[in-house]
Amino acid sequence: MAKQDLSSERLHDIVAEISKEMADETERGKVADYIPPLARIDPNQFALTIITKDGEVISGGDAQTRFSIQSVSKVFTLALGLGRLGERLWARVGREPSGDPFNSIVQLEHEKGLPRNPFINAGAIAVTDSILGGFAPKEALGEILQFVRFLASDEDIAIDPDVARSELATGFRNVALANFMRSFGTITSPPELTLGVYFHHCAIAMTTEQLAAAGRFLAFDGRLSPGGARAISARMARQINTLMLTCGHYDGSGEFAFRVGLPGKSGVGGGIMAVVPGQASIGCWSPGLNAVGNSHLASQALEQLALRTGWSVFAPR
Amino acid sequence: MAKQDLSSERLHDIVAEISKEMADETERGKVADYIPPLARIDPNQFALTIITKDGEVISGGDAQTRFSIQSVSKVFTLALGLGRLGERLWARVGREPSGDPFNSIVQLEHEKGLPRNPFINAGAIAVTDSILGGFAPKEALGEILQFVRFLASDEDIAIDPDVARSELATGFRNVALANFMRSFGTITSPPELTLGVYFHHCAIAMTTEQLAAAGRFLAFDGRLSPGGARAISARMARQINTLMLTCGHYDGSGEFAFRVGLPGKSGVGGGIMAVVPGQASIGCWSPGLNAVGNSHLASQALEQLALRTGWSVFAPR
Amino acid sequence: MAKQDLSSERLHDIVAEISKEMADETERGKVADYIPPLARIDPNQFALTIITKDGEVISGGDAQTRFSIQSVSKVFTLALGLGRLGERLWARVGREPSGDPFNSIVQLEHEKGLPRNPFINAGAIAVTDSILGGFAPKEALGEILQFVRFLASDEDIAIDPDVARSELATGFRNVALANFMRSFGTITSPPELTLGVYFHHCAIAMTTEQLAAAGRFLAFDGRLSPGGARAISARMARQINTLMLTCGHYDGSGEFAFRVGLPGKSGVGGGIMAVVPGQASIGCWSPGLNAVGNSHLASQALEQLALRTGWSVFAPR
Amino acid sequence: MAKQDLSSERLHDIVAEISKEMADETERGKVADYIPPLARIDPNQFALTIITKDGEVISGGDAQTRFSIQSVSKVFTLALGLGRLGERLWARVGREPSGDPFNSIVQLEHEKGLPRNPFINAGAIAVTDSILGGFAPKEALGEILQFVRFLASDEDIAIDPDVARSELATGFRNVALANFMRSFGTITSPPELTLGVYFHHCAIAMTTEQLAAAGRFLAFDGRLSPGGARAISARMARQINTLMLTCGHYDGSGEFAFRVGLPGKSGVGGGIMAVVPGQASIGCWSPGLNAVGNSHLASQALEQLALRTGWSVFAPR
Repeated sequence: MAKQDLSSERLHDIVAEISKEMADETERGKVADYIPPLARIDPNQFALTIITKDGEVISGGDAQTRFSIQSVSKVFTLALGLGRLGERLWARVGREPSGDPFNSIVQLEHEKGLPRNPFINAGAIAVTDSILGGFAPKEALGEILQFVRFLASDEDIAIDPDVARSELATGFRNVALANFMRSFGTITSPPELTLGVYFHHCAIAMTTEQLAAAGRFLAFDGRLSPGGARAISARMARQINTLMLTCGHYDGSGEFAFRVGLPGKSGVGGGIMAVVPGQASIGCWSPGLNAVGNSHLASQALEQLALRTGWSVFAPR
Repeated sequence: MAKQDLSSERLHDIVAEISKEMADETERGKVADYIPPLARIDPNQFALTIITKDGEVISGGDAQTRFSIQSVSKVFTLALGLGRLGERLWARVGREPSGDPFNSIVQLEHEKGLPRNPFINAGAIAVTDSILGGFAPKEALGEILQFVRFLASDEDIAIDPDVARSELATGFRNVALANFMRSFGTITSPPELTLGVYFHHCAIAMTTEQLAAAGRFLAFDGRLSPGGARAISARMARQINTLMLTCGHYDGSGEFAFRVGLPGKSGVGGGIMAVVPGQASIGCWSPGLNAVGNSHLASQALEQLALRTGWSVFAPR
Repeated sequence: MAKQDLSSERLHDIVAEISKEMADETERGKVADYIPPLARIDPNQFALTIITKDGEVISGGDAQTRFSIQSVSKVFTLALGLGRLGERLWARVGREPSGDPFNSIVQLEHEKGLPRNPFINAGAIAVTDSILGGFAPKEALGEILQFVRFLASDEDIAIDPDVARSELATGFRNVALANFMRSFGTITSPPELTLGVYFHHCAIAMTTEQLAAAGRFLAFDGRLSPGGARAISARMARQINTLMLTCGHYDGSGEFAFRVGLPGKSGVGGGIMAVVPGQASIGCWSPGLNAVGNSHLASQALEQLALRTGWSVFAPR
Repeated sequence: MAKQDLSSERLHDIVAEISKEMADETERGKVADYIPPLARIDPNQFALTIITKDGEVISGGDAQTRFSIQSVSKVFTLALGLGRLGERLWARVGREPSGDPFNSIVQLEHEKGLPRNPFINAGAIAVTDSILGGFAPKEALGEILQFVRFLASDEDIAIDPDVARSELATGFRNVALANFMRSFGTITSPPELTLGVYFHHCAIAMTTEQLAAAGRFLAFDGRLSPGGARAISARMARQINTLMLTCGHYDGSGEFAFRVGLPGKSGVGGGIMAVVPGQASIGCWSPGLNAVGNSHLASQALEQLALRTGWSVFAPR
């Protein structure tokens, strides 16, 4: 279980083993079908990428295939929002786990329009609204995209316009959430503008290699590598890690923390970004989802990865 | 922030500083008043004890004063229940954070009598019921007490009979929870027997030194010290740590994780037990509570301790 | 549709027709099975009795068979409680329909222990507690039974001890409700005493003829017959009728009001007591229940009765 | 209490007395302030109109002043929707009282997008959507207005464009409800079109004389007068009366039924329309609202009217 024994070679083996096992799995979950561009995705795909503290990139499976990151983008907007507003952001969104599904509106009514945390849809929409401020949606969106490209050190990252368009056309529940919060003053821009930005940043497409790269700042205390360029403060990085651990997987957050023991954030596109503080950043993807909306195989793969590497924020150090 | 630089001397200084600062605090929260023996406690008390991986015991404040550990006992019954039933325990209680207060019955109705986690009252009563099994309450209680004494390596730990008696006389809400779960079959013994055991183990009294000693097994991967006697498996120790981080402070769990970044469990007696995996076990106590039922000063003290030591499960390693 | 055309002969025909149709029905609902004495009842039974303003008693089916009136008894305790406490009773229980099932505890938590109306279990327990006051349970129960006998002008009405004993042994959910309310101070006697009285008055057994007789005071503005002995004030009789119409059938109250248009109260024993203000009192019974806990055939029979007689509080007068 | 003794003269006196008493009241409730055109209304206004079965119109107070009927319009759209779709309408909306406020979204989530009844906002939006069908909003709105004019026999009834415009600009919560239901398929037109019609029919302006005239069809079993022109079937008229009694006053429906004992429907403009089946149609108005959103003085006036006339659907006949 001694982490220092994890040679690069051993990590390569583990990634290859897991990728093979996941390719062979027959139970693959159910692809999100609420918008056509997601429903069309082939469920027989899986990818896993680890970027180590030494900068080594270790991949298995379809690590060059782009997928829709969806809710994983909530981590990036939270980082951007926190960086810009600091503590004031918490007047708009809470920090407690929610006992309700990701798109629940019940909690909002009980707590007078304040979403419980930034990783349920309502909370992420509130964060997006705070980034939007008085700016034009296009500018805000440009800034978000630029920030993600910077985090991943990759200028090729882009938004999938088909996905964004489909979400805009069918996202009635998110329109409901935004208008409900607007009625309480939690969001201040016209709901349709805030949602325009929100749907677009959810439609960012990435490979697991890009996703792992984009997550490095959370693995390395706010820097893109140990001692490297700073994206946010160490304190904020730890705060975001905390929130990913307690709230990163919707109503399955407790279960993921229990089984995997690492901060992570999932999206209905099937991606999960996770980090091992001080050690590694991880991108994982498989499009089939479990009953609470997290990738079935990516969750399983990360549990196996934690088991075989001994990685856990709860392990002795 | 480098943890290896934390000399014993520096730790002594930090504990002394924090103890002094907390003694000077004027805002001390509100002592639990629902039973007379708790309502009588002097709020002007504070204690902090750290036991390091080398076995050193560092204390400040009223570290020799016993207090009612209340819900902190839920950690010990969970460990005992998990040790005895293993995975089967999870058929009786979930592992997800709850968005409701500690004594809420709403969640129970929505989820057909299954409590969301072992650290809300309903969940802890279900765990106690699973320990009780078909045994006599006196036997089950004896076993729990023996287990706690073993964990703390201290045969002096005892139950405060006044507190137990008061809880029995006034705990209508817990009687409601137990009978509600009994109606769903989540608990199987007669509710009054299960509650008898529950109220008694909540009435265990300890000093912060005893509490820190009792928490060592969670700091050292299931052992009473690094390489020492094993209490539970390493895997179970990490699982319990996970649950303490995500659910250990009722409706303030997210906030505690966010501010302190360490697994911990609080009780309405004002105690908090917390651990730094691989480094230290901590007992802290001050009787005044904040709005969600956690010790106001002990929460604050642990936040300061984490800040000054750099301890956090989310820090790089 | 002219009510004055309803000859005694026509009423006899209607009761006979409906009784025959109900005897032939194959879909009969599901007998309550939570206690053995109820689970044993033969579902192939049906009875209907109408007592007119002229005192004529018109019966069909098994009108001499006694059944457990269960929640119908809530009407009698409400009348007794209102008579004794007057307006002060409404400090203990609300007057609004509940959107939750009869044994829900959710609403209680949201409204700080105040039950929404006297016809959900929690509300009826609160009313029973107010009747109990400081008296011995036996006395309070004697008084309730005496009141029911007076209303029905029938000294033969008694409690079924088997049913009462079974409820006491298995009514965990009601124990939960009572203790929950006790924790808020809505009830003031020891919960087990209040529940003892409650379970016993729910175990009163009656025939439909006795039930129709017991309901006369609600049909005739508080008197046992037009111009006869007064049981309660006219004002209170109308208030109770209002509550039966809006809340008398648990979560199916709106549906019953919509289909039948008469004040009524159902019990899980399969009985329904209903009234046509100024015209008639009705007792109906069939043990099989529908999905929300009301008698399947008795509901249907009353809908047919209303249709064929033109009886409805919403009909022009 | 004998209703036949109610001479025209006595009714005139009662209306005059009540109008005077209400004019003198100092506690007048709080005018709805969520849109400017409503917030500007002078609270010192009161009007009461009764139209008897003989067609006599008896008014007191400001019976010539137009006010925004708001939710009272839900009765007219329900009648129109029922007339057009018949029983099929009930696939879109339930018939049970709701334990939640008029604009609650909680119940919608718990019941998969089906509103509990046609008189909470969500339910009325669903009814409007069913009237809209595939038609152009302008046509649907024209038809609603035409129907109201027919009911009231008054071609002067019109929509207040200021009010409609204000609602469109600020009705975020209703936008949330509509989009939420659209996500479940309860409504099928684009939410903004359905809401356009909804906000406009809520903005119909009437005097109490027009309101009482528009309610006659519910007093006279579906006809505009006893034996007069038929608007809907007798059966539907009674069904709508049932729903007004059980659900017509939001979370104060039970209270209104309890105190007044007549079917009625209130709006946040301060109007209440009520009926005495077979006897009279009533329009009442005073702009100040009580805590649950019903007119404070109109509720009080109707309670007095029922008391002094003996009118109640629960009185013997």
